[in-house]
Amino acid sequence: MTASRFRALVLGAAAGGGFPQWNCNCANCAAFWAGEEGVEALSQSSIAVTVDGENWALLNASPDLRGQILANPAMHPKHGKRHSPLVSVLLTNGDLDHTAGLLTLREKQSYNLFGTGEILSVLEANPVFEALDPAFVSRIPIVLDKPFDLLPGLTASLFAVPGKVPLFLEGDGPVQTDMQGEFTVGVEMRADGRRIYYIPGCARMTPDLAARIGGADLIFFDGTLFEDDEMIRMGVGQKTGARMGHISMAGPDGSIAAFRDIEIGRKVFLHINNTNPVLRPDAEERRIVENAGWTVARDGMEISL
Amino acid sequence: MTASRFRALVLGAAAGGGFPQWNCNCANCAAFWAGEEGVEALSQSSIAVTVDGENWALLNASPDLRGQILANPAMHPKHGKRHSPLVSVLLTNGDLDHTAGLLTLREKQSYNLFGTGEILSVLEANPVFEALDPAFVSRIPIVLDKPFDLLPGLTASLFAVPGKVPLFLEGDGPVQTDMQGEFTVGVEMRADGRRIYYIPGCARMTPDLAARIGGADLIFFDGTLFEDDEMIRMGVGQKTGARMGHISMAGPDGSIAAFRDIEIGRKVFLHINNTNPVLRPDAEERRIVENAGWTVARDGMEISL
Repeated sequence: MTASRFRALVLGAAAGGGFPQWNCNCANCAAFWAGEEGVEALSQSSIAVTVDGENWALLNASPDLRGQILANPAMHPKHGKRHSPLVSVLLTNGDLDHTAGLLTLREKQSYNLFGTGEILSVLEANPVFEALDPAFVSRIPIVLDKPFDLLPGLTASLFAVPGKVPLFLEGDGPVQTDMQGEFTVGVEMRADGRRIYYIPGCARMTPDLAARIGGADLIFFDGTLFEDDEMIRMGVGQKTGARMGHISMAGPDGSIAAFRDIEIGRKVFLHINNTNPVLRPDAEERRIVENAGWTVARDGMEISL
Repeated sequence: MTASRFRALVLGAAAGGGFPQWNCNCANCAAFWAGEEGVEALSQSSIAVTVDGENWALLNASPDLRGQILANPAMHPKHGKRHSPLVSVLLTNGDLDHTAGLLTLREKQSYNLFGTGEILSVLEANPVFEALDPAFVSRIPIVLDKPFDLLPGLTASLFAVPGKVPLFLEGDGPVQTDMQGEFTVGVEMRADGRRIYYIPGCARMTPDLAARIGGADLIFFDGTLFEDDEMIRMGVGQKTGARMGHISMAGPDGSIAAFRDIEIGRKVFLHINNTNPVLRPDAEERRIVENAGWTVARDGMEISL
């Protein structure tokens, strides 16, 4: 196969709250605060993709976005007085961890903002997002499973994956954690004859999903927790991964097992929670995921296809 | 006078958008992107204060807050699994540049959130701020000119300064840019026999304000622009400082002139816009403000009284 110009850049590899989390002293965070060697800070969940190297699409706008732009020269303004390589922004759910960064993308800069109708409705319900001047930012609702041009030469489709509504919309009643609809989506991207998936949140593998992603060149997938009860055992939370709408890596229902028989060129875990032991380079869990053919994402990691 | 334990830490010295601004190529930003020596990035407007060195109050929660916490060891968690030295948070207006950081202060951490009724109403109008669980975060409305305990041993008062409503609430009609009310306030803080003012936004000096701040030990004051038409001349905006509700440093109505005859122990400019020439260490404007007895704030600058 000839070389392709399709590239992906990991802006933030961590789950919501980032690594370390501001008020956390779990084993991983304590190691970071203590300055332990090899334990690197990770910012919150976001990637950028490009085909021509000039124009980029941002997939999710994390609260750390301003720092992510500063840290990655490809994201710096290049021409004239006002400029950004970010010409498209796509949201995969309405969680703050994926939307708060929009509040950085102001200053009279034009771009297209894509999301499902449900996801965009979260923005409409919050006057703070009126900071995005409609004269510059076009909000474009995307219908599931209907391809659209995310960038010139890059066709994307959004598809439902099992998940839940954003945390701040959960309410007091029981929460369905593996609903499939417009609130949590995966992204399929095709360019230069290559196919990439970006699925930072997913509650479980389904036969539909397995069939869809088979044969992909690259997948970025939900790597929130290693084990479902990890946050409880570490004493920093009361929720399981399942309750948060995230599949875990380990176990018979985990992602490592679910992907074992699916043919994919390169598999990358991202959206990694601060408690996940794979964040430690010397951890046994890190060896397990790497031996299963996965890469643990880092901020600034770039993958060319 | 004996030494005091009253300390202030500049978390972010820049105005909204920070320095550099994500999509800006003004002279200052271009120098930063090019890696020019001595041109340092500054994060967005925020300070923290303490009396006992253990418990801190955060004054404004900028979008860069997570990075500011990571960058300053005094802000790291110290005890147990969940902890933060930040026990109080105070907002001086409802602008996103001063509130978006609240979206970082989650994760079951208890603190008091202070602001005027008008400022807190901005939060109430936006469901995203329901991410702040009322079981952990107490929103406490403060009446102007009525002292309250910001920290144990630290008494604060909020007072009106000339300003305007937050940008995203401006609407389409004419905007009053020097109204005095609950939307833009200054903070007076008294501890250990010392007096500090924090006024990151102020449209002009008034006789009341001059009388109030006289004799203070330290003031942090609005240093947004050097000259009122600076953004227009640099080709990166259409607004004057006056239109944005900010006094400028230079000129007969500027802050340097306004403070000339007011006795204050130490004067620090912060909330500095990316276009302000004082950001360049070699600029003539930098010499002018320093010769007038002002310090230009930097991220991480700590001042003990």
